[in-house]
Amino acid sequence: MAPRAQVHRLPMSGPGDVSAIGELIDRGRLDPLSIVAILGKTEGNGCVNDFTRGYATLSLRQLFAALAPAMDVDRVSLIMSGGTEGGLSPHWLVIAVEDTPGAGADSPALAAATAMTALLPATAIGRRAQSEAVRDATRAAIQAADIAGLGDVHFVQIKCPLLSSTDVADGGAALATTDVLHSMGLSRGASALGVALALGEVPDARVTDEAIGRDASLWSSRASSSAGIELKRCEVTVLGMSAAFTGPLAIAHTVMNDAIDAAAITDLLSRELPGAPLPLGETASSVAAVLCKAEASKSGTIRGRRHTMLNDSDIASTRHARGFVGGLLAGLVGETALFVSGGAEHQGPDGGGPFALIYQRSE
Amino acid sequence: MAPRAQVHRLPMSGPGDVSAIGELIDRGRLDPLSIVAILGKTEGNGCVNDFTRGYATLSLRQLFAALAPAMDVDRVSLIMSGGTEGGLSPHWLVIAVEDTPGAGADSPALAAATAMTALLPATAIGRRAQSEAVRDATRAAIQAADIAGLGDVHFVQIKCPLLSSTDVADGGAALATTDVLHSMGLSRGASALGVALALGEVPDARVTDEAIGRDASLWSSRASSSAGIELKRCEVTVLGMSAAFTGPLAIAHTVMNDAIDAAAITDLLSRELPGAPLPLGETASSVAAVLCKAEASKSGTIRGRRHTMLNDSDIASTRHARGFVGGLLAGLVGETALFVSGGAEHQGPDGGGPFALIYQRSE
Amino acid sequence: MAPRAQVHRLPMSGPGDVSAIGELIDRGRLDPLSIVAILGKTEGNGCVNDFTRGYATLSLRQLFAALAPAMDVDRVSLIMSGGTEGGLSPHWLVIAVEDTPGAGADSPALAAATAMTALLPATAIGRRAQSEAVRDATRAAIQAADIAGLGDVHFVQIKCPLLSSTDVADGGAALATTDVLHSMGLSRGASALGVALALGEVPDARVTDEAIGRDASLWSSRASSSAGIELKRCEVTVLGMSAAFTGPLAIAHTVMNDAIDAAAITDLLSRELPGAPLPLGETASSVAAVLCKAEASKSGTIRGRRHTMLNDSDIASTRHARGFVGGLLAGLVGETALFVSGGAEHQGPDGGGPFALIYQRSE
Amino acid sequence: MAPRAQVHRLPMSGPGDVSAIGELIDRGRLDPLSIVAILGKTEGNGCVNDFTRGYATLSLRQLFAALAPAMDVDRVSLIMSGGTEGGLSPHWLVIAVEDTPGAGADSPALAAATAMTALLPATAIGRRAQSEAVRDATRAAIQAADIAGLGDVHFVQIKCPLLSSTDVADGGAALATTDVLHSMGLSRGASALGVALALGEVPDARVTDEAIGRDASLWSSRASSSAGIELKRCEVTVLGMSAAFTGPLAIAHTVMNDAIDAAAITDLLSRELPGAPLPLGETASSVAAVLCKAEASKSGTIRGRRHTMLNDSDIASTRHARGFVGGLLAGLVGETALFVSGGAEHQGPDGGGPFALIYQRSE
Repeated sequence: MAPRAQVHRLPMSGPGDVSAIGELIDRGRLDPLSIVAILGKTEGNGCVNDFTRGYATLSLRQLFAALAPAMDVDRVSLIMSGGTEGGLSPHWLVIAVEDTPGAGADSPALAAATAMTALLPATAIGRRAQSEAVRDATRAAIQAADIAGLGDVHFVQIKCPLLSSTDVADGGAALATTDVLHSMGLSRGASALGVALALGEVPDARVTDEAIGRDASLWSSRASSSAGIELKRCEVTVLGMSAAFTGPLAIAHTVMNDAIDAAAITDLLSRELPGAPLPLGETASSVAAVLCKAEASKSGTIRGRRHTMLNDSDIASTRHARGFVGGLLAGLVGETALFVSGGAEHQGPDGGGPFALIYQRSE
Repeated sequence: MAPRAQVHRLPMSGPGDVSAIGELIDRGRLDPLSIVAILGKTEGNGCVNDFTRGYATLSLRQLFAALAPAMDVDRVSLIMSGGTEGGLSPHWLVIAVEDTPGAGADSPALAAATAMTALLPATAIGRRAQSEAVRDATRAAIQAADIAGLGDVHFVQIKCPLLSSTDVADGGAALATTDVLHSMGLSRGASALGVALALGEVPDARVTDEAIGRDASLWSSRASSSAGIELKRCEVTVLGMSAAFTGPLAIAHTVMNDAIDAAAITDLLSRELPGAPLPLGETASSVAAVLCKAEASKSGTIRGRRHTMLNDSDIASTRHARGFVGGLLAGLVGETALFVSGGAEHQGPDGGGPFALIYQRSE
Repeated sequence: MAPRAQVHRLPMSGPGDVSAIGELIDRGRLDPLSIVAILGKTEGNGCVNDFTRGYATLSLRQLFAALAPAMDVDRVSLIMSGGTEGGLSPHWLVIAVEDTPGAGADSPALAAATAMTALLPATAIGRRAQSEAVRDATRAAIQAADIAGLGDVHFVQIKCPLLSSTDVADGGAALATTDVLHSMGLSRGASALGVALALGEVPDARVTDEAIGRDASLWSSRASSSAGIELKRCEVTVLGMSAAFTGPLAIAHTVMNDAIDAAAITDLLSRELPGAPLPLGETASSVAAVLCKAEASKSGTIRGRRHTMLNDSDIASTRHARGFVGGLLAGLVGETALFVSGGAEHQGPDGGGPFALIYQRSE
Repeated sequence: MAPRAQVHRLPMSGPGDVSAIGELIDRGRLDPLSIVAILGKTEGNGCVNDFTRGYATLSLRQLFAALAPAMDVDRVSLIMSGGTEGGLSPHWLVIAVEDTPGAGADSPALAAATAMTALLPATAIGRRAQSEAVRDATRAAIQAADIAGLGDVHFVQIKCPLLSSTDVADGGAALATTDVLHSMGLSRGASALGVALALGEVPDARVTDEAIGRDASLWSSRASSSAGIELKRCEVTVLGMSAAFTGPLAIAHTVMNDAIDAAAITDLLSRELPGAPLPLGETASSVAAVLCKAEASKSGTIRGRRHTMLNDSDIASTRHARGFVGGLLAGLVGETALFVSGGAEHQGPDGGGPFALIYQRSE
């Protein structure tokens, strides 16, 4: 008996459409109790007033309440990330771990586990206290996923809270910021630095309240965080390769150095899918999931050319960045159901971001 | 003596910034009288109330009035296309044709010429009458550019009018549409079909008032049209290869079959820039200009996956499409100053679009 | 025993927040079985991709499933209208009818009842078939509310469907339009003309497929319709004065002739709340609910001055109109929790709209 | 001989349309040399990337270069304020002062004068140094307008710079903020406090770098500031009543205490236009100009009800506020060509703003 991680990539017709997940369960192809995490890429604006995330979460909870009353949904990380700009396609990624008979012939294989922090007070959000909480949760999830070395950790997804206008009204000057939109970035950044601490990517002493959101030289190559108004703690899902797991799926990662770093992606694809044509085209079917962060470079330029994302008062820069990077990835991978998430504070270098590929190994 | 076409790709810090063009003129590197067309990719929304186009045009006119009083600016096609979504970079493409001493050692080479239609009445916009006017202007420009065969025409840029709310108030039911935003698409489509007629890409009988904006099976592989409120006729700029021209620049084209058709681009780049690494990276410097159209597929899907561009009431689908396709192209070409234009009605297949590359041939 | 209509205006902190309704029920101040209709003014964009409506509806259903298992929620009209532009405040209006001991000392009084049409095929949407269905449902609701004369009907709220992109893909040319955003307007218009037919406000023969969405001279002075993707039939809620009802609440209506028709509002307030200062200020507490429609005049002008709502490709005209008219009403009434709904096709004259006031009569 | 201030309110069909001003000059009804200031309410987003302001300014300069070569345009304050949300109508307000034969029979009357600060370094923007510069320019303009008492100053319009992304790249930590959108607010606020200092509305010691943008208890009842990327100094235009001026125009002001403070407006109208019906309706013709500031209250509420302006990531709160307050004012005044400007930092109390009325006195 060995655990096997599965990834179900499923379509949704809107943030309230959980029917594809329901069908998998109905047909016996998915045991609700095996679900570790559900990532949802929903079609909201991905910013403060993106209610598609809460809607999707409520719809999932209602589905499980109906189909799996025994399931403890609070044990599952429900990570909704708004924004399918450009041609990105709204979808679910259901990550499940089932026990498989027989030893791990396919080991090492994709491994997954989740851990959660305690509830965070508003004063902790966007600060070192949040980083420490995420660091500890990341360590716990790595252990739970039976991943032996930090180099085998390939993606750490964090869902984290933001400050509400109520928090601001109550907390005022005691908070890291009084701007709710800004708090999304600080929270994502503090979470990412928590992962960086857990993975030994940054010196402990440099992760300070002051550095969070400011010192762009500090970053994790594997953290991806999304902020949402619908939770008050951080949820951490670790994905990596573990000798204790089995199955056909593997995961690898790279870092995009800027928003148009196609070479990083083609290098990874060449290495992990040897023999596949580039861009992928038909071979895209071996790709089980793509997870990536995108952001507008704070320098205001990409390879020396001015971009306009940070000066646009009609469309948030996170929306611009998701659609732009999404187009590049979709072209290279031959697939638009990609989990491209905006707001890459401390997640990869300025203007770039971590990229992870989950794929089916050929026989 | 042989004509030589030049393309100057120049940055702008905003739609009113023509200083880079002014500098070229001041330094004697650009003769204003040699300018055939100026394309501007400006940072507006590219839709009805995009005033960056008019602002850029006014700024150009003012520049030439100051620096080149003898110049007849109305003879130059000023094609402003709004929208630099994602990481696209606002820029000018100044296309000039100068006589060069000596015979055409580098022939055939990039050729360029412009022609204009008469003023179009509001009732013609979006209808066959517009297509016919553009067809004739395209033929005139091909002849002016001394391009021998239709196969040597690689890109035809049209700038066309749209209906204003005044037109709608005056014209009402006699017009092709009473929706000003919709009129942009019809005008772009009628223009593109004019090019398709000139290039023999569609049967003459099928270009009817009814077919324009509806029959997506009719399209040109080389037309690119932009609509703007600031003109009342169509301006046609033809780019191709001509034995009568000389110089180091060449042009080639392909058609993207959908918004993520990376293979079409990499095939073209491999063919035209043999030996260059893909994605281009450092070799990007041999690329003088990229011109491309992008649009959201009316099917609502890309390779079977739903996209959300047509249902988004916050961001126009043209904006989504430009940023998304722009990201792909920027990654492959290693450059963000790309003339990606939205609204590809009858310009390439549904959801795809024509793509042209102007590049420096290696010695 | 006489029926008594009640209106509970309750705050929400977001589209998923039904806690204020839950509290009323918990405290015994609202019997779920007495609820006739719930109107929700939610903070979405009020256009095609406004998921706050579906989210609010799902949240209401979940609330009632938990608190009132015996309740047949499908019998209640759940009318979610997106858009709280400007300073408008998201809120619920819960309309309930309870039997009150004793005769109707306060009669006539506010009366309310709901009726629903059958499911509408996509081909009926935006056409006379929809108008007829709404006409019949309106008549049924008037009868159910025991309203004796058509002059005593003061507001008819309709919730109606729109075409989805799936409908368009399936139905194509057989539909009234293939533009999903446009279908919202046609559906609202067809619904309004159904009310106009029921109230005898327009000649029967003039309500044709062709007239819907085009002939602005046809309108109802009391219809208000909202379109939403979350339903496939029309739900009609009639509000009026009935001798069969009792209680302190009354309703009156007027029509705004344009978006700045303050005089229509102040005249109504003077008549119905004699002695109250204008603008209302402190007296605002006697106002139980305001329901109103707003739209951008198709003429492109207001009292001869150009407006820019129809040319704005960044913000939908319905959003502009709601915020603008909302500001006027909020100032006059001294209250921002107003049910201002956008898209007033055939609801009042071009650029204007019906306005209804529900208020507490002074002793 | 006495000076007479005139206000010409003129329509524009777009930010580049200066034809109405040109016509006045052509017909001899406006002497370009008499122009003190031109305010333009243009149809941009009023935020960072609003190029309608620069476009309008360039168009004005071009007009005067053609029609009035002797005119020193730099002496005229060109104050472009973007944003005509809702039904607001784009327009010009040309303020001119001409010498009139005869003594001042109509004195005191509307007076106007302009003064400018020196160029401001980026480090001064949003700080006390800017306030002091504006204070001094305000005093100079009051003197130039021959206004005897501070109580006779009724409106002070300031046009002020913002930080560009270049400033941020160059200046970094030495600046008041590194967020360009935020710099607009700080600059408007510092300017307003400069007026407050000049008018004795706040204690000198409280206007500190720290207080600007934070201490909402500090405000001017008569300052109105607009920030624009197109200038690097502040331009101050003072409007008031002066015994030295003559003519039929007068000015008065009030302060809206919140965004729906209709009573403040109706009180002012009753006082200044005794006998006129309220809302104004036909009498609107006696109103020569309305100038007002609007903003979303930072409390997140209006009279205790939640608003959503500060949480909306699709539409900037300044756009919401302009449309909302604009609707109220247009209804009361019966006119949509109102100079409603967003961003009321230190201009009136939180969520409110100064309001000025220029009107024709009845004979």
